[in-house]
Amino acid sequence: MSPFTMDSNLHQQLMTADQISNLLAKDRQYVWHPFTQMKDYEQRDHVLIQRAEGIFLYDAWGRKYYDTVSSWWCNVHGHGHPRIKEAIHKQLHAFDHIMFSGLTHAPGITLAERLVQLAPEGLHKVFYSDNGSTAVEVALKMSFQYWQQVGNTTKTKFIYLEGSYHGDTLGAVSVGGVEQYHALFKPLLFHGYKMPAPDLRAAGGHTLADEAIVAEQALAPVRELLQLEAEQIAGIIVEPMLMGAGGMIMTPAHYLTELRKLCSAHQIHLIADEVATGFGRTGTMFACEHAGISPDILCLSKGLTAGVMPLAATLCSDTIYAAFYDDYMTQKTFFHGHSFTGNPVACAVALASLEVFEEEAVLERIQLTIRALETALHGSGLAALPYVANIRQLGLVAAFDLYEDAQRKMPFPPEKRIGAAIYEAGFEEGLILRPLGDTIYYWLPHCATPEDVSDIVSRTLRVLNKVLG
Amino acid sequence: MSPFTMDSNLHQQLMTADQISNLLAKDRQYVWHPFTQMKDYEQRDHVLIQRAEGIFLYDAWGRKYYDTVSSWWCNVHGHGHPRIKEAIHKQLHAFDHIMFSGLTHAPGITLAERLVQLAPEGLHKVFYSDNGSTAVEVALKMSFQYWQQVGNTTKTKFIYLEGSYHGDTLGAVSVGGVEQYHALFKPLLFHGYKMPAPDLRAAGGHTLADEAIVAEQALAPVRELLQLEAEQIAGIIVEPMLMGAGGMIMTPAHYLTELRKLCSAHQIHLIADEVATGFGRTGTMFACEHAGISPDILCLSKGLTAGVMPLAATLCSDTIYAAFYDDYMTQKTFFHGHSFTGNPVACAVALASLEVFEEEAVLERIQLTIRALETALHGSGLAALPYVANIRQLGLVAAFDLYEDAQRKMPFPPEKRIGAAIYEAGFEEGLILRPLGDTIYYWLPHCATPEDVSDIVSRTLRVLNKVLG
Ligand SMILES: Cc1ncc(COP(=O)(O)O)c(C=O)c1O
Ligand SMILES: Cc1ncc(COP(=O)(O)O)c(C=O)c1O
Repeated sequence: MSPFTMDSNLHQQLMTADQISNLLAKDRQYVWHPFTQMKDYEQRDHVLIQRAEGIFLYDAWGRKYYDTVSSWWCNVHGHGHPRIKEAIHKQLHAFDHIMFSGLTHAPGITLAERLVQLAPEGLHKVFYSDNGSTAVEVALKMSFQYWQQVGNTTKTKFIYLEGSYHGDTLGAVSVGGVEQYHALFKPLLFHGYKMPAPDLRAAGGHTLADEAIVAEQALAPVRELLQLEAEQIAGIIVEPMLMGAGGMIMTPAHYLTELRKLCSAHQIHLIADEVATGFGRTGTMFACEHAGISPDILCLSKGLTAGVMPLAATLCSDTIYAAFYDDYMTQKTFFHGHSFTGNPVACAVALASLEVFEEEAVLERIQLTIRALETALHGSGLAALPYVANIRQLGLVAAFDLYEDAQRKMPFPPEKRIGAAIYEAGFEEGLILRPLGDTIYYWLPHCATPEDVSDIVSRTLRVLNKVLG
Repeated sequence: MSPFTMDSNLHQQLMTADQISNLLAKDRQYVWHPFTQMKDYEQRDHVLIQRAEGIFLYDAWGRKYYDTVSSWWCNVHGHGHPRIKEAIHKQLHAFDHIMFSGLTHAPGITLAERLVQLAPEGLHKVFYSDNGSTAVEVALKMSFQYWQQVGNTTKTKFIYLEGSYHGDTLGAVSVGGVEQYHALFKPLLFHGYKMPAPDLRAAGGHTLADEAIVAEQALAPVRELLQLEAEQIAGIIVEPMLMGAGGMIMTPAHYLTELRKLCSAHQIHLIADEVATGFGRTGTMFACEHAGISPDILCLSKGLTAGVMPLAATLCSDTIYAAFYDDYMTQKTFFHGHSFTGNPVACAVALASLEVFEEEAVLERIQLTIRALETALHGSGLAALPYVANIRQLGLVAAFDLYEDAQRKMPFPPEKRIGAAIYEAGFEEGLILRPLGDTIYYWLPHCATPEDVSDIVSRTLRVLNKVLG
């Protein structure tokens, strides 16, 4: 399949060339795109998408692209899933948005119940918000206020990991460990403790023992800090098993199990940010399951609505909830809320998505895709390329790093912007790749078939060949 | 109309009593509602909404309520507007959500164009996010980074007003002036300058001269601060004309016009948070129009999608945009973005809402409602009640304060929770009132008719009579 082949199912009217260039001129005139140096688009255009179906996006010229990053790690069942559309139509027939304070509604209630049933045990209360960043803000504020209200008032600081990413609101930025995104805003951030990440790339081999060594190396300074300062610390926030924006850093389960013990021993909240990893992406419903642990607070978004519309949830333990539950005049209310909290349409979509998980036995089905991905990564000649290193995978997510000399781990000069070149070349091969620096990754939707996977990897090889020879 | 009368249009199946109590039990078990002391609901239930149409919400028992607060100040054209539903269906037919970085789409582009056309002049670029809090976070970070990049690196602080509210993420909380919501989180907040609000309640009369006195009183300390410290200050953030969550504080246009001059003279960004006031609520499309000024940065959300689903936009001047536009390697990118940035469905809804504004000549039509509200407020005997003071109105928003002795402005003891009692009694009269402390307010949707308005005020009088005798 060439990306330039018109798709036979293309039932949308294509735009005329004039309409397209008109829209793109307006894009340039009016729109400031997220995480984008707009000058990068001085000479070329953003890709104008006109249709999406399953794993494919179609641009206004009718060109077809694999959405290999699931539209920023959000999409789950493919674009335009009929069950999701149906759920939206049904909900809109009943009611659109209503306030979720003083009032309540069936989709919000039922979704909360389903989330509690599915989540790691002990997480019994659901607080909704709108996106991953706010899910994290809620978690931080909840943890902070909890300690104030149980009389442990010195516990005001948070631990976070190097290379972690938890969103772009200033609370979330304060616990972010990607210098490039956050350094500038230091004067606006609260102070926290940055600890090393247990990056599995540092493991000599792939045995559990190797993983444990990496984990213990990263745990040592945490143990030390907690010995000395646990009384100052409210919680630690981590992206369990897989640190996305920091460069698809995969981390050992051992780290999480030990961290869970440490947190319990020292009375520290373990906050699991599963905004990206939740809802099956790592092969299990939640990434915490790989380690068999429960956090005290769990942040969800992105895949929660199958990637269709904004919604987030922060789940917490009964212990935390209980510390806020008191007579109004004791002033223990959690004064947090967003206008669109518990948006009924988004909740209905999330419920439909969870039904699709059941009806289509999605978690079983993806195991095949996951194995196909493994096969493609290791059987395709990718590993033999002199500029490829650190091929890694967890569930539907895989990544590798590009080096000028992979053997000696000599990076490309940053000004070469190899990742950006791969990205551009990807479009020509019908791929939406979106490298993080020189890390190329896939973040596949659950609807990807084994055939899609091998096609995607072959196309990637062609892209690499084109750009790196 | 009694709220207990079944509505003849009620085409939804009602739930059985068992289904209702089952849902409400689950609500209590699983849901943590926003801005809510959950113990307040130990003995009573949240109101379970099952349908919404126009200005009315219907609970699971078929009872009908006026949505006098427009579902937390969001709803614009009434619930279930057919044009909005149609827009959603059409957009879902084409594509649901796609990433807005590297890719672009017609609804996002066209909406940006429309917003620029409608907004106060000079605001030429649109940066999307998901809710009011993130719109504010974007504004703060944009302003902060701007000064860093134009070499004015000491400009790192923000001014905000007493009683202001800009959202619940920690950046937004840092510029929030409602102590009750924010005091606890001090250790997590960045430092700013809190200035007095030009509260029109302090005006002796209602002439422009009276207003100017109030404005000048509030401006004096700002002038003083800027004389001394303008070099430390990046921007000032205000809710133009109407400070919502702080207690429906109405402020004079004169304050804004003078503030605009001050900001220009001292090189300070004027950030207008119109998350609540935008899209006609105050009688003009944007509240800034009352003062004929343009801010440097404008925050929008809530009514942007007619209150149907989460979406936000931060608009800024070309000057600000230009400071970020450079070669990638100069590291001037604005590294901010949310997964659901520019959600196509939400953008399509916002576009449809703006079309309804035109098709139904909404801004003209509401002038009648606004006058009806004025008549009802002043002709209904409300002003004569011994416990009512400070009746005030701006567009579709009106408020008054309850006092034990209104003449002497003696408040009720807080533990009496008069506002909460009014709220509860409101349900019995078919009203969703949601007082802020002892301030009762209406925040009417644009679909409210003059008849609705007089009915709502009559019902309110009955509620007041019941609770306060
Ligand atoms: C782990 C993690 N947390 C939080 C966020 C922030 O979510 P949002 O972009 O919806 O604000 C992201 C987004 O990529 C994420 O990957
Ligand atoms: C003026 C103003 N700014 C910001 C916000 C925050 O918006 P959101 O609740 O969508 O985060 C609000 C919400 O009420 C508001 O009234």
